[in-house]
Amino acid sequence: MTVNDLTANVRQQLDAFLQDYLRRRPATAQLQKAMQHGLLLGGKRVRPYLTMSVAEACQGAADDALRAAAAVEAIHAYSLIHDDLPAMDDDDLRRGQPTCHKAFDEATAILAGDALQTLAFELLSDSQHGWQVSATQQLQMVQALASASGDLGMCGGQALDLAATGQVIDEAALAQLHRKKTGALIRAAVQLGVLCGTEDVQQYREAFDQFADALGLGFQVQDDVLDVTASTEVLGKPQGSDLAADKATYVKLLGLSGAQQRIQDLHQKALHSLAAIPYNTDRLEQLANVLLNRDH
Amino acid sequence: MTVNDLTANVRQQLDAFLQDYLRRRPATAQLQKAMQHGLLLGGKRVRPYLTMSVAEACQGAADDALRAAAAVEAIHAYSLIHDDLPAMDDDDLRRGQPTCHKAFDEATAILAGDALQTLAFELLSDSQHGWQVSATQQLQMVQALASASGDLGMCGGQALDLAATGQVIDEAALAQLHRKKTGALIRAAVQLGVLCGTEDVQQYREAFDQFADALGLGFQVQDDVLDVTASTEVLGKPQGSDLAADKATYVKLLGLSGAQQRIQDLHQKALHSLAAIPYNTDRLEQLANVLLNRDH
Repeated sequence: MTVNDLTANVRQQLDAFLQDYLRRRPATAQLQKAMQHGLLLGGKRVRPYLTMSVAEACQGAADDALRAAAAVEAIHAYSLIHDDLPAMDDDDLRRGQPTCHKAFDEATAILAGDALQTLAFELLSDSQHGWQVSATQQLQMVQALASASGDLGMCGGQALDLAATGQVIDEAALAQLHRKKTGALIRAAVQLGVLCGTEDVQQYREAFDQFADALGLGFQVQDDVLDVTASTEVLGKPQGSDLAADKATYVKLLGLSGAQQRIQDLHQKALHSLAAIPYNTDRLEQLANVLLNRDH
Repeated sequence: MTVNDLTANVRQQLDAFLQDYLRRRPATAQLQKAMQHGLLLGGKRVRPYLTMSVAEACQGAADDALRAAAAVEAIHAYSLIHDDLPAMDDDDLRRGQPTCHKAFDEATAILAGDALQTLAFELLSDSQHGWQVSATQQLQMVQALASASGDLGMCGGQALDLAATGQVIDEAALAQLHRKKTGALIRAAVQLGVLCGTEDVQQYREAFDQFADALGLGFQVQDDVLDVTASTEVLGKPQGSDLAADKATYVKLLGLSGAQQRIQDLHQKALHSLAAIPYNTDRLEQLANVLLNRDH
């Protein structure tokens, strides 16, 4: 089973929800097309899968979980649009398609990213949706997503990443970079799922968080491994592009087999964290299994 | 009395709060310096003044109002950083100082803007602050700020503005552009002030909103007038820069005296809206008076 097989159902639900949500908005033409391009370009939808699977384990309402998942994905989509910009990673292709600033233009891509970030917080605070969770829990979702996305999380990680290009950094610094750049949002995806549940599930927040942390870091080490082992066609981006960009990677620091061993350790850690949770976490275990053994 | 005289007290409180808030964060060096540059570069602080004055009129807690005001200003600061980027308005100077991408670099400016937007939602959802308002009201603040900032508000307005450059548009289209680009956030500043108050003040939300709408539009017409009447030194940007950039302006559409008359009409409308509110709105009246008669 591949990640795409596993997340197929979530992808379908999420894409239908997002398409419908965007269609209902009064049109502002070009800008919304660019948002849609970024949001509906595909992708594995790992973060929404996490939010929805955790919420299901915690017996949260599926409608709340879908909305929370859409908010996390909107943040992810905005970050990809901005990371691809010429002043940042300068990528022309994403998932085999033109990046937002290539399909539209740079100004539109900047604005589409900005507006997708806003959309995430709009989704979490929208009062038209009949939320099952309390206003306090909704507010905690806003807080968790904001903490994960800003200068102390994802944006801070991207800044570290840009600063680290061409520099020699050690494994601790690389782990910190990834924990911020990608790990923080993966942890937020899980936290939002927990926040869809009742008060009593909140005691397992820490165990869920440890799972998310190990999964997030393992995912990133796997990315570094795939950059040297997978083909351009399978990746949807040029093979070895991180090596070429002179970026710090786990493969450079630990060697290929060292990096592969690190993935196995983090995989075990993720499963171990799940074992402490007395709910049905099969879908999360499956995700860890396929995600940390994926070939693209 | 100038706008700066009127807002001096708010500016002092806000700058002290923001400086302290940023100083308490774990450092991520460059990125936070760029955020600080954007947030503490000066400016009249009209939006925070609005939030705090409206909250005071509505007998909201001053601490809640300060935090809400900071959130609005964080959105404003992020929008200026992104609007100044080479792909957008390509401005080197803002308030007589180098713009963020000039003082740092483009990638850092994009990230600083992104992280300032996030900071706004972090401020509104922060549970460490002992909010006087209910979680529901906090959530309404998040919702109001998100609606005002995204593709249906500020970002949408900037997109319209970019699309309108070099185009002939009529007054209705220009008003719509400004209502989104700058008006939406000014209205949100006022709405957040009202949301700092009790339940019974919420019935005057509409009157406050009409005040904000007239003030916001008047402010923008005044900007167009100043672009042709004020000197480069006083403006802190080149005189006639909007004319040179081939942008639609009220002066082009209505002529100078027509635009000046429009300001007077909107001024009267703003004061008329305030008259319907049974609280002390002197500070708002003062603002309308000095803002719509300002010379820079």
